[in-house]
Amino acid sequence: MNTFGKIFRLTSFGESHGRGIGGIIDGCPAGVELDIDLIQKDLARRKPGQSKITTQRKEPDQVEFLSGVFEGKTQGTPIAFAIWNKDQHSNDYNDLKDVFRPSHADFTYTKKYGTRDHRGGGRSSARETIARVVAGAIAKQILAKAGVSIQAYVSQVGEIKLQKSYKELDLSATENNIVRCPDQEVADQMIARIEKAGHEHDTVGGVITGVATGVPAGWGEPVFNKLHADMGFAMLGINAVKGFEYGSGFEGTRLSGSEHNDIFIKTDEGVRTKTNNSGGIQGGISNGEDIYFNVAFKPIATLLKEQQTLDKDEKSIKINPKGRHDPCVLPRAVPIVEAMAALVLVDHFLLNKLNTI
Amino acid sequence: MNTFGKIFRLTSFGESHGRGIGGIIDGCPAGVELDIDLIQKDLARRKPGQSKITTQRKEPDQVEFLSGVFEGKTQGTPIAFAIWNKDQHSNDYNDLKDVFRPSHADFTYTKKYGTRDHRGGGRSSARETIARVVAGAIAKQILAKAGVSIQAYVSQVGEIKLQKSYKELDLSATENNIVRCPDQEVADQMIARIEKAGHEHDTVGGVITGVATGVPAGWGEPVFNKLHADMGFAMLGINAVKGFEYGSGFEGTRLSGSEHNDIFIKTDEGVRTKTNNSGGIQGGISNGEDIYFNVAFKPIATLLKEQQTLDKDEKSIKINPKGRHDPCVLPRAVPIVEAMAALVLVDHFLLNKLNTI
Amino acid sequence: MNTFGKIFRLTSFGESHGRGIGGIIDGCPAGVELDIDLIQKDLARRKPGQSKITTQRKEPDQVEFLSGVFEGKTQGTPIAFAIWNKDQHSNDYNDLKDVFRPSHADFTYTKKYGTRDHRGGGRSSARETIARVVAGAIAKQILAKAGVSIQAYVSQVGEIKLQKSYKELDLSATENNIVRCPDQEVADQMIARIEKAGHEHDTVGGVITGVATGVPAGWGEPVFNKLHADMGFAMLGINAVKGFEYGSGFEGTRLSGSEHNDIFIKTDEGVRTKTNNSGGIQGGISNGEDIYFNVAFKPIATLLKEQQTLDKDEKSIKINPKGRHDPCVLPRAVPIVEAMAALVLVDHFLLNKLNTI
Amino acid sequence: MNTFGKIFRLTSFGESHGRGIGGIIDGCPAGVELDIDLIQKDLARRKPGQSKITTQRKEPDQVEFLSGVFEGKTQGTPIAFAIWNKDQHSNDYNDLKDVFRPSHADFTYTKKYGTRDHRGGGRSSARETIARVVAGAIAKQILAKAGVSIQAYVSQVGEIKLQKSYKELDLSATENNIVRCPDQEVADQMIARIEKAGHEHDTVGGVITGVATGVPAGWGEPVFNKLHADMGFAMLGINAVKGFEYGSGFEGTRLSGSEHNDIFIKTDEGVRTKTNNSGGIQGGISNGEDIYFNVAFKPIATLLKEQQTLDKDEKSIKINPKGRHDPCVLPRAVPIVEAMAALVLVDHFLLNKLNTI
Repeated sequence: MNTFGKIFRLTSFGESHGRGIGGIIDGCPAGVELDIDLIQKDLARRKPGQSKITTQRKEPDQVEFLSGVFEGKTQGTPIAFAIWNKDQHSNDYNDLKDVFRPSHADFTYTKKYGTRDHRGGGRSSARETIARVVAGAIAKQILAKAGVSIQAYVSQVGEIKLQKSYKELDLSATENNIVRCPDQEVADQMIARIEKAGHEHDTVGGVITGVATGVPAGWGEPVFNKLHADMGFAMLGINAVKGFEYGSGFEGTRLSGSEHNDIFIKTDEGVRTKTNNSGGIQGGISNGEDIYFNVAFKPIATLLKEQQTLDKDEKSIKINPKGRHDPCVLPRAVPIVEAMAALVLVDHFLLNKLNTI
Repeated sequence: MNTFGKIFRLTSFGESHGRGIGGIIDGCPAGVELDIDLIQKDLARRKPGQSKITTQRKEPDQVEFLSGVFEGKTQGTPIAFAIWNKDQHSNDYNDLKDVFRPSHADFTYTKKYGTRDHRGGGRSSARETIARVVAGAIAKQILAKAGVSIQAYVSQVGEIKLQKSYKELDLSATENNIVRCPDQEVADQMIARIEKAGHEHDTVGGVITGVATGVPAGWGEPVFNKLHADMGFAMLGINAVKGFEYGSGFEGTRLSGSEHNDIFIKTDEGVRTKTNNSGGIQGGISNGEDIYFNVAFKPIATLLKEQQTLDKDEKSIKINPKGRHDPCVLPRAVPIVEAMAALVLVDHFLLNKLNTI
Repeated sequence: MNTFGKIFRLTSFGESHGRGIGGIIDGCPAGVELDIDLIQKDLARRKPGQSKITTQRKEPDQVEFLSGVFEGKTQGTPIAFAIWNKDQHSNDYNDLKDVFRPSHADFTYTKKYGTRDHRGGGRSSARETIARVVAGAIAKQILAKAGVSIQAYVSQVGEIKLQKSYKELDLSATENNIVRCPDQEVADQMIARIEKAGHEHDTVGGVITGVATGVPAGWGEPVFNKLHADMGFAMLGINAVKGFEYGSGFEGTRLSGSEHNDIFIKTDEGVRTKTNNSGGIQGGISNGEDIYFNVAFKPIATLLKEQQTLDKDEKSIKINPKGRHDPCVLPRAVPIVEAMAALVLVDHFLLNKLNTI
Repeated sequence: MNTFGKIFRLTSFGESHGRGIGGIIDGCPAGVELDIDLIQKDLARRKPGQSKITTQRKEPDQVEFLSGVFEGKTQGTPIAFAIWNKDQHSNDYNDLKDVFRPSHADFTYTKKYGTRDHRGGGRSSARETIARVVAGAIAKQILAKAGVSIQAYVSQVGEIKLQKSYKELDLSATENNIVRCPDQEVADQMIARIEKAGHEHDTVGGVITGVATGVPAGWGEPVFNKLHADMGFAMLGINAVKGFEYGSGFEGTRLSGSEHNDIFIKTDEGVRTKTNNSGGIQGGISNGEDIYFNVAFKPIATLLKEQQTLDKDEKSIKINPKGRHDPCVLPRAVPIVEAMAALVLVDHFLLNKLNTI
C-alpha cells in the first residue's frame, strides 16, 4: 500500500531517520528528457530550514537517480531514486521511544504492526513526502509537454483567510514570500500568525488551494476513478490533511441547482462553461475548464510544549519535547500538493490514451 | 476503473435505461450467511419513489443473485448480482439525445469516448449506485460480526444545518422521517426546503454525516491507503459529491495544535483519547475511537426548468425537461454513503489480517 | 482473483449448475462495433454436444449482453454478459455431494473454503471458460483491426502426435474435422483414439498448439509481464492444463546457443529473423515474427468408471458415475486457447500505447 | 510491470551496468526477524565467478537494506534494498552500442521504447534477478516458519538428462557440486558438457526442477490465479526460460484418465493421494502433496563467437564479442527458480488468510 497510481506508479520507501527516503517510478514513458534542476527546485521548496518559519532540521535533500535514466532520458524502465538522510540525530528521539505522543501515529502503528521505528516518527514522518515531490516533479515535466500546469498556494493560515479566488490573483507571485501566498498583504498576516505559533511553541493549521490549467476535456475514469475522487484520495494521503473539496465544494451545498449549474457556451476556443462551479470536472471527467480544489491541513501534532500522555505500558506521563519543530507545515506542503496533483493528472493523461482504438 | 476495493472488490456494471444494473463481488470470504432482507432493506432506502420528496420513477429494485451464494452462504467464489430495470421509458430521453445538459456528464462522456448512451444519463446516472448498495449491505453484515456498525444521516439541506454533533443525537431516530435527519425539528425544516425546491422545479444540495463505531485500532494502510484517504476516495466517487472531511475537518484548520491534539487517557476500556478531533484515525490508521466524516453534495443538475445550453453541433438551444426529478438526492444517498463506508471498512478489516504472521 | 488482464480486464462469475456463467469486461475501448455472430461462433466451437466425440450435455450457450454495448458499439463502459444455464440436471450430482472425486477440485475447494457447490463441480467446472470465450471473441475483433490473428489446433491426442510444424500446415483446414487438427490423416487417428477412450468410459489428454500472426514488434512488458509469461499464465489458468512452452520450448534446451540463436536479416518487409526459435518474442517483447506455443492438457478426471476414493468424512468409498462425459476436451478447448491468447494480446496492444508520449 | 506479487509485492529496479540493482518489497508482514546470512548465501549461489563453469565477472553482490528493517525485524513498512554494481566495465560494450545481437533484447527494446541502455543488456540483463533472489530469500524465511521448504536443482544440461525423479534423489546433495545436480555421476557429465560449450565459446541450455514440500492444502486462487498458473508465470518471467510444466506435465498428456487420476487414501497424516500426477495442485489449489515442476532454459544468446547480424541502421555486420560469458546459466539460475517459487508461495500463504472470516 505504498504504491500510488495505476499507470505511472510511485512506490515509496524510507523512514525519517533511516538510511534515506526514495522510491521507484514504474510506468513512466520512455524518451522523456529530465530536467534535474526542476526536480531539485521543488525539493528546495519542500526542504526544512528554508526560512525562518519552518523547522531548522538541516538536510541537503539532494536526489540521486539509481536507475531508469540513461544519457538524460527516461528509458521506459523503472526509475529508482533516493534522497539520503544526513541530519539523523536519532538519539534525540530516545526519550520518546516508548511514548505515545498525542495525535501522532505512535499508538496506531504499535497497535497495527506490534513494532515501530520510533526515530522521528519513522515511516509515519512527513519526510516520506520527499519521494512524492521527486515523482511529482517528473510528472509535471510530462504534463508541461501536454500543456498542463499546476500551481498551489496557501490560502488560509489559522483564522487568516485569503478571500480572493484564484482567478483574482497573480499566482506567479506565490513564490515571492516565504508563506507561499500570492497576496502579499495576506501573506504578511499569515507569516505573523505562524511566528506567533512558533513563539508559543505551538502549531497552526490552514488550507492550500490547488489549480490545474490546460487539462483538456476527457480525463477521468468513471465510475470509481473519477478525476476528483483520485485527486481527493491523493490529497488525503498527505500527512495532516483532514479535508478536500473541489469546485464549489462545501459552499456549493447551499446553492440551488439553477444557481449551481454551469451553462455551456460557444466561444472562439470551442465549448466552454459560463461559470465553473464544477471545478473543471463533470461526471468525473475533465471538461476543459480550470480544475481547482482546497485541501485542509490540521495544525500538526508536534509541539514543543508540555503535554500529558501515556507510554506503551499505558502509564500516564508528561512529555516536553525540545529542539526543532514546524509551527506551520503549509508553506512546505505547497510543493507536495502540487506533486500529488501532478501524479493524479499524469496517470489520467496516460489512461486517457486507452479510451478508443 | 469500475472496480472498487483491494481485497473485497466490487466491479459494477449497467446503465440507467439498459437491461439492468449489477456487479460482481470478488474476494468476499466464504461461509458468510447472507441476510437478503437486510440487503433489500437498504435498496428500499435508496429506491426512487419511496416518499413525496424523491423522484417518482417506479422501480421495484429487487436484487437477483446470479452466482457465489449456495444454500444461503457465500462460497468464496465471485458473487454476481443484478437489479433488472423495469421502468425504462427510454423514449422520454430522445429529445435530449444530442444535447449537452448543463453540469451533467453528457459533454464529457462524448469528449472522452466519442459516443454515449444518452438514455437517462446512461452509465453516468446515479442509478448505478444500486450496485454499491448491494455490495455495501453484504459488507455491513461481515462488519457486524466484527462489531462494527455504520450509520449515516442528513446533516444539512441547503442553508438548513443541523448544529448538533453526532454525539448529541439519537442516530436510531434517523429512519423516523423521510429526510433521514435524526433531529425531527430540523428534519421538518429540511423537508419543507426540499418541497420548496420541488415546487420551483429546482434542486438543493446538502451534507451527509457518516459515523462508524466499533472499529478497533489498527485498520488502515499507510502511506497512500490511509483509512481516511480510502474513505474520501469512496465518498468522492458518489455522484454529485464535491467534498469530504473527517474528524475536525475544515473547521479544525483554525485551531492551534495544543487545542487540536487528542490526549491519550487510560480507561476501563483501555487506551482512549479525551477528545476526538482525529476522527478515530491517526497516521492513517484507526485508533479505536468513533470514525466520523462529512460528505458535501451539490444540488443535482437535473432541473425541470428551461435552461440555455449547446447541442453536439455546438449550436445554442433551450431545453425544458418534463417529467420526474429528485429535488434533493440526500435522503436517498444516505444508504449509498453507508454502503461505500462499509466497502472501505470491510477491505481494511481483511487487509489488516496481513500485517503480521 | 477472478479477474484477468491489466487494461482489458475480464472478471468472470458463475457455477456449472447455478443461474449462469458470465462476466464483466472493464477497459474495453469505446467505439468497437461488435460482431455478435463471431462471438456466437466461438461459443459454438466450445459448446458441449457439438459432435460425437464431446459430452452430450445440451446447452444453447447463447450470450446475452447486459451493459456496455449501445446501438451495436462498445461505449467504454463495463460490458456485462451472461450465458444462462439451461440443462441444469443438478440432481444428477446428489450422489457426489459428499465425495472427493479423484483429481478433481472437490477436496481442495472444501479445504480452502470450508464449503463448496458440489453440483457439477460448481465454480471449478470448465463451464466457466464460456466467459473467457466471449471476452476473447471481443478481443479477437479488436486485434483483427490491428492486423493480428490467432489460430489454435489440436496437435496431439494421447500418443498420436502431429509431426509437422504449423508452418507446414494449412491452418484454415482446422475446422474441417471434429477434432480440430488441420492434418486430416492425423485427425482421423485422433478421432479414433478419442472414440476408443469414450468406449472405455475413460479419457485422454493431448496438446493444443497456438499461433498468433501479425503481432508487430514491441508488445510485452519486462521484467515480469514478459509477453510469454503472460501467455503462459493465461494458458495455465485453463482447466486441465499442465504445461506451456513457446518457440523452441523444452526441445530447445538440447541445442547449443549457436544453433538456437535467430540471426537478424534485412528483408523487403524490414528486419526479420532467419529462424524463429524465439517464437516471436525476445526479452519478453514481440519481435514481429509469428508467436507460437504448445499447451499440455492432462486427460480430464471425470471418468464413467468405478474408482476408489474418500468421502468428506474420510471414509473409503467406491464411485461409479453415470451419464455424460467428455472423453477428450481438446477439440472444445481450441477456442478457449484462442480466447486466452487474444486476451493476453489485446492487453499488450493497449499497454503498448503507454510506452512513449 | 516491474512489480511481482499481489500481497507480498516486489518492485525491482536497475540495469546491468548502472548504479546498482535493487527493489522494494511492500506487503511483507511485520515482526519477521531477518537472517541476513541466509539472504547473502542465496546471493552467493547466484553470483558470477563462483566456479569455473560460470562467467568470471567479479561482483561482491552484497545487499544493503535501505528501509523497512529496524533492530533486525521487518516493520510492516516497505523494505528497500540495493546491490551496488562494482565491476562496471561499461566501455566493453561500446562496440555493441548500435548492434542488435541475435536473440537478445536489443532489437525489441529499441522498437518498444525508442531508446535503450546498451551497456551489458541494460535492463534486460539477467543481473536484474538479484533483486528477486533477495526478496525470495526473505519469502523463504517466512515460509520456513509455516513449514514450507523449496529446493531446486539442475535436472538436464543439453542432452544430458537426470532420469531419476526428485523422490529418488537426496536433494540435500544439490550443493555438493558446482552444477547443482544432486546425482554426482550425472553432475560430472553435465560439468563436462558445460566445459565443452565454454571451450567452443558457445552455450548450452537445460532444465531446472523445483520441489516445494510442506505446503498445506488450500493455497491457490481460482479461477485465474491457480497456484500453478502463478508458478508458471513466475518461472516464465526468468530470463531465458522457454517452458514450464508441473506434476505429470507434457508426459502426462499421453496417459489415459484412469492412469492419471490420483486416488485419495486415508493415512496417519490425514487425506493423501496414492500417486501425485497432480503435482500437489488440484483445481488450482494445493492438496497437501509435494509440488514439483520443470523449467526449460534455452542456451543463452551471448556467445564469444563470430555471428552475422544487423545494426540499428539495418546494415549487415559481423560481431565477435570478447571477454566473459556464461556457457550455461543453469547452475546460477537454481537460486532464482527457488526465489520465484518462494515469492509465489508466500503470496498464496498470505492470500489464504482471506478465505474465511
